[in-house]
Amino acid sequence: MKATVLALEQYNQPLVRREIEIPVLAKGQVLVKLTAAGVCGSDVHMWKGEDSRLRLPMALGHEGVGIVAALGGPKLTIDGKELHEGDPVIWNRGVSCGECYYCKVLKETSFCPRRKVVGINLSLNDPPYLNGCFADHIILAEGTDFYLIPPGIDPAVLVTASCSGATAAHAFDLVRPEPGETVVIIGPGPLGLFAVALAKAYGAGQVVLTGGSQSRLGLGKVFGADLVLDRNKLSAAERRELIFEITGGRGADMIVETSGTAAGLEEAIGLTRMGGSVLSVGASQPGGTFLFDGFEDLTRRNLRLQGVWVSDARHFDRAVRLVLNNPDLFAKMVTHRFRLSQANEALAAVDRREAVKAILLPD
Amino acid sequence: MKATVLALEQYNQPLVRREIEIPVLAKGQVLVKLTAAGVCGSDVHMWKGEDSRLRLPMALGHEGVGIVAALGGPKLTIDGKELHEGDPVIWNRGVSCGECYYCKVLKETSFCPRRKVVGINLSLNDPPYLNGCFADHIILAEGTDFYLIPPGIDPAVLVTASCSGATAAHAFDLVRPEPGETVVIIGPGPLGLFAVALAKAYGAGQVVLTGGSQSRLGLGKVFGADLVLDRNKLSAAERRELIFEITGGRGADMIVETSGTAAGLEEAIGLTRMGGSVLSVGASQPGGTFLFDGFEDLTRRNLRLQGVWVSDARHFDRAVRLVLNNPDLFAKMVTHRFRLSQANEALAAVDRREAVKAILLPD
Amino acid sequence: MKATVLALEQYNQPLVRREIEIPVLAKGQVLVKLTAAGVCGSDVHMWKGEDSRLRLPMALGHEGVGIVAALGGPKLTIDGKELHEGDPVIWNRGVSCGECYYCKVLKETSFCPRRKVVGINLSLNDPPYLNGCFADHIILAEGTDFYLIPPGIDPAVLVTASCSGATAAHAFDLVRPEPGETVVIIGPGPLGLFAVALAKAYGAGQVVLTGGSQSRLGLGKVFGADLVLDRNKLSAAERRELIFEITGGRGADMIVETSGTAAGLEEAIGLTRMGGSVLSVGASQPGGTFLFDGFEDLTRRNLRLQGVWVSDARHFDRAVRLVLNNPDLFAKMVTHRFRLSQANEALAAVDRREAVKAILLPD
Amino acid sequence: MKATVLALEQYNQPLVRREIEIPVLAKGQVLVKLTAAGVCGSDVHMWKGEDSRLRLPMALGHEGVGIVAALGGPKLTIDGKELHEGDPVIWNRGVSCGECYYCKVLKETSFCPRRKVVGINLSLNDPPYLNGCFADHIILAEGTDFYLIPPGIDPAVLVTASCSGATAAHAFDLVRPEPGETVVIIGPGPLGLFAVALAKAYGAGQVVLTGGSQSRLGLGKVFGADLVLDRNKLSAAERRELIFEITGGRGADMIVETSGTAAGLEEAIGLTRMGGSVLSVGASQPGGTFLFDGFEDLTRRNLRLQGVWVSDARHFDRAVRLVLNNPDLFAKMVTHRFRLSQANEALAAVDRREAVKAILLPD
Repeated sequence: MKATVLALEQYNQPLVRREIEIPVLAKGQVLVKLTAAGVCGSDVHMWKGEDSRLRLPMALGHEGVGIVAALGGPKLTIDGKELHEGDPVIWNRGVSCGECYYCKVLKETSFCPRRKVVGINLSLNDPPYLNGCFADHIILAEGTDFYLIPPGIDPAVLVTASCSGATAAHAFDLVRPEPGETVVIIGPGPLGLFAVALAKAYGAGQVVLTGGSQSRLGLGKVFGADLVLDRNKLSAAERRELIFEITGGRGADMIVETSGTAAGLEEAIGLTRMGGSVLSVGASQPGGTFLFDGFEDLTRRNLRLQGVWVSDARHFDRAVRLVLNNPDLFAKMVTHRFRLSQANEALAAVDRREAVKAILLPD
Repeated sequence: MKATVLALEQYNQPLVRREIEIPVLAKGQVLVKLTAAGVCGSDVHMWKGEDSRLRLPMALGHEGVGIVAALGGPKLTIDGKELHEGDPVIWNRGVSCGECYYCKVLKETSFCPRRKVVGINLSLNDPPYLNGCFADHIILAEGTDFYLIPPGIDPAVLVTASCSGATAAHAFDLVRPEPGETVVIIGPGPLGLFAVALAKAYGAGQVVLTGGSQSRLGLGKVFGADLVLDRNKLSAAERRELIFEITGGRGADMIVETSGTAAGLEEAIGLTRMGGSVLSVGASQPGGTFLFDGFEDLTRRNLRLQGVWVSDARHFDRAVRLVLNNPDLFAKMVTHRFRLSQANEALAAVDRREAVKAILLPD
Repeated sequence: MKATVLALEQYNQPLVRREIEIPVLAKGQVLVKLTAAGVCGSDVHMWKGEDSRLRLPMALGHEGVGIVAALGGPKLTIDGKELHEGDPVIWNRGVSCGECYYCKVLKETSFCPRRKVVGINLSLNDPPYLNGCFADHIILAEGTDFYLIPPGIDPAVLVTASCSGATAAHAFDLVRPEPGETVVIIGPGPLGLFAVALAKAYGAGQVVLTGGSQSRLGLGKVFGADLVLDRNKLSAAERRELIFEITGGRGADMIVETSGTAAGLEEAIGLTRMGGSVLSVGASQPGGTFLFDGFEDLTRRNLRLQGVWVSDARHFDRAVRLVLNNPDLFAKMVTHRFRLSQANEALAAVDRREAVKAILLPD
Repeated sequence: MKATVLALEQYNQPLVRREIEIPVLAKGQVLVKLTAAGVCGSDVHMWKGEDSRLRLPMALGHEGVGIVAALGGPKLTIDGKELHEGDPVIWNRGVSCGECYYCKVLKETSFCPRRKVVGINLSLNDPPYLNGCFADHIILAEGTDFYLIPPGIDPAVLVTASCSGATAAHAFDLVRPEPGETVVIIGPGPLGLFAVALAKAYGAGQVVLTGGSQSRLGLGKVFGADLVLDRNKLSAAERRELIFEITGGRGADMIVETSGTAAGLEEAIGLTRMGGSVLSVGASQPGGTFLFDGFEDLTRRNLRLQGVWVSDARHFDRAVRLVLNNPDLFAKMVTHRFRLSQANEALAAVDRREAVKAILLPD
């Protein structure tokens, strides 16, 4: 039996359809028939060769939802239920070694130097070969964290939880807004929209979303933003003045920077109150530099600048529960749906920033 | 009755001896006869006009120890004991308003915008006029936090707790080393030596101190550093290699930057493990800029860059207890003692970095 | 000018109307004309002589809202705005000393041994005499934390924030539910309803409320409870089975016990998962004892049993913001309104558990 | 090839010497030749049939140190070094499933319902049969956390880290003393002595140890206790008075109860300050009940009663590092050494409380 993969063989070249023999499953592996795959902004960066973790040829796609097609032995979900063929599932995209200092002592499995991530650092030459979601089947390694999906959930909606959602949840696991506090979110893409939803879910008082797209800012309001600021209508100085005005002159308590740009991070620092926090979540590849003044930008204001890198099972759990509790809301994030065979068009739509979230469905 | 003050009337000019009438004490004020005053590195910056908080003419000196000379009504120490004339005391240098959002809701009294600090943002024209420790008497405001000093403690030794000690304790209140972790401290001045002592007191496994002065690094060893690295003997690359070698290739868990320079902060970021913390403690005025790459310096390594600004009663409490438990150790930090009338020489000795800690004693 | 007070002169006897001369305000004091006062369950206990903190004669009433009638000098709100005559305000009922170890080092002002609370530990003989909210005027001490009330807010609704709301917020300041977690709240009175609203605001996944009154449980659903369990219809064993069933067999992550009874606490312990938390919030006087097995009830299940005693300005801030964001919801808690002169009837209605929240309005 | 095991076949009967065929190692298993095994207080309880987790026949012994004799494939230590035959090692006694809600989302692997612990819940009939340390060889499961032991360390000294040490470290991972705080430790056995060492390592100001054995209290002083209180010389009231006296009348900040008795827990609650913490660490089986008053013992004093159950890799790491940094100190805890064939005498010595720590060495 063969599986179809849309392979990235050369950077900046169209993905190529390849047929691959499905190998015999080893102990603990799970073969999944994909019902939806997400196209992440970072997939575009990878396709352009801007991510040093890749080795070609490979299948992109680290966000997926599907149906169990075969099992290499008994396997339990995080909730302790046994997986069976035919079960609809979602999974945590990364698998860590489970035995190193990061995994065991620090309990930070996402920092594990041996972490393997489908669609990112596994090539088509690494057994079991089916290592990405831009495909009709994927084989998930022993140690993958699974959730059963309840009936009636559109897989295209849930798929957003597995990367943007989990990464945004990681940010809020590190720093939480106090009820009544003001959270500013920079960037209205999937990460930013998840951050809006999480900030509201955690009881933030005022959530402000900034961005340059009217339609995305409008979506931000639907996700719960109390105030949206359009970069094309308000200057940086005007945005800052407004945020200080609505916070009693103190500045925002917490900023979540999801644009991944130097300009976004620099703006974030300027919007924060004494003792506040900036969470830098957006960058999956270099986003430029700026002149940093340790006194003004850090020490004198007692700021916390917190990098947020990828996510682990805890964050994935938060994101999945958030989407399952609000499926109609998150359905609004999925602006584009393509067939698997249209993966190149899907990448292009994300690259042109037309799509908030583009999903690949089976052919 | 008159008090003597060494007044800063013009930046970069010698302090001038002034006689000032001691006013009648208002309710809650405490008149203290100084037995020791510390000369802080920031006093030199202030004398040079590099600190925008000052208004001249003023008395420098925010670190002091003394004997209660008169009380404007009953006053309790933090430990609930009533103060009496003749009691030897130390006090927290800053007094916050106690009624604002920072004081009451955030419980961060050191961020209070109305915080008054003796020897820093109070001039000789602000009642009650005696607002600095470069003097024979000081009047401390209602709301000042006092500690009784046990008998037999050299006031010159304890004085170090009230600024460097409290500020270093603030850093460790924000991020604590886990037992067995590796803490790197950059800069072997009073802040750095306190950080070494605190890191050991909190159970850090390995404490590494870096600096450029052999004698100060030697003092660092006495304070508990397991390893000292001389900037003049090891390049930045060699220092980094060494720290990665002793941390299983991961990098240090926590860095305390006390030099207040851009170079120090940049080095700190490079020494930290995935998910580790950099505490920037040293800067009381601008220390330069560097090119900051949000991806490499923050996000991809999930770093926490934490500014640490001044201190409050909790931190002051930690520092005082640390010194009281180890008076012989902290005595070694006091390398120079001057008479009050020699305050200009004391400033010069600190400016030339001859003194680790210089103390002014009564004439 | 005179003020009217409903005085508690003898336990278990009707409150007595007294006229009291309004004294000249000392520095920092604020005279407030009350527009609403809450009748707390603990007022009934106090009236019955079950609270050892009281000294008669006194005015009950620790929950109030009113209008500034006179000021003993300039006074700022927590948000830094200057108070003026005519301003509608709410205030934190307790004033701590601000200078002891609890206030300054531990930053736990509600543990201050010198904390004074209007309507609780101040008698009619303690200057400035007007020390309770069952009155037409109250004098609030220097150091009281004030909030300005925005226009259009019914004071009877906001009054609930100042005791039940703040105490419930204290619980959630100590232990927070993670998004998606299950929180069980025992007792559907004002504390329990605030706990339901807070659990939802903090992102809890499932909120379960247990109690014995159909109407209060119905109100609980309006406040956001996902599931309500009626003690009169389900046995303790059935309630436990249900909670384990909806938590994957683990038990609830967090229990908030607001009934103040031994039975409630014992049930709470039995409902918790390994490593979960029980917050005991409800008791303002002894509520009975039970046989405690340190192994089964604490150690073997790695439980956290956390007492929650009163509240401070931070918690008060959370509660006020919560009510201001949801005034229509909290209006539903106010089931009974009385005139001040009907204070004895109001106490009786609370004692008979007819009223969820009873409010006294000016005559 | 055969291994020798001292088997517990009937409760309260002498352990019996059995020869067991060493099976072929499965993937990930590690065969270790034991160089030291600890006799824990709970081994005596197990031998008496007081621990419901056991299934006979079994080999007791959950604390061990040894030398790698064979490997079922490549295996890394927590520090990322590859294990080889001949390596001296210590290991975490419990192995969790790594895929359930406790392991993955809560990151509390010690609460995993499928956790397997050598010498406790594995019998001689469970493959690979060699499941306890009262033996000359043990087979450790895939997923076991290993540390390499540096040369020159007496295995009999390090063995204490793997149960008492790790469990005490778990307590301090949940609640940490602030520098200068007062920690009271109840019970001067191995758990209590580790707690003394950890309290000092974490910077506690005053450490008080209570117990009934002069020699153990003397050992407590060597481990760092500032004050020891002999139950046979001071009544409970006198002990309480003393502790309140040395804490400014507030009570102790943190109590670590290691005796596992109802009396110990009840005393602990009475010694704590407002807002303080009691950690109940000692009980591995029921230790009796007492009448608990939720108001006085929990709510009114805002106490945290925290159960502490077993430990995970993080705690084990802390304990191993603590012993490796202070081998001469911990050597003093090992009061008795026996040969493996004398295991029954060793159990008796622990049962008679003659031995603080008894160690079994190879025959």
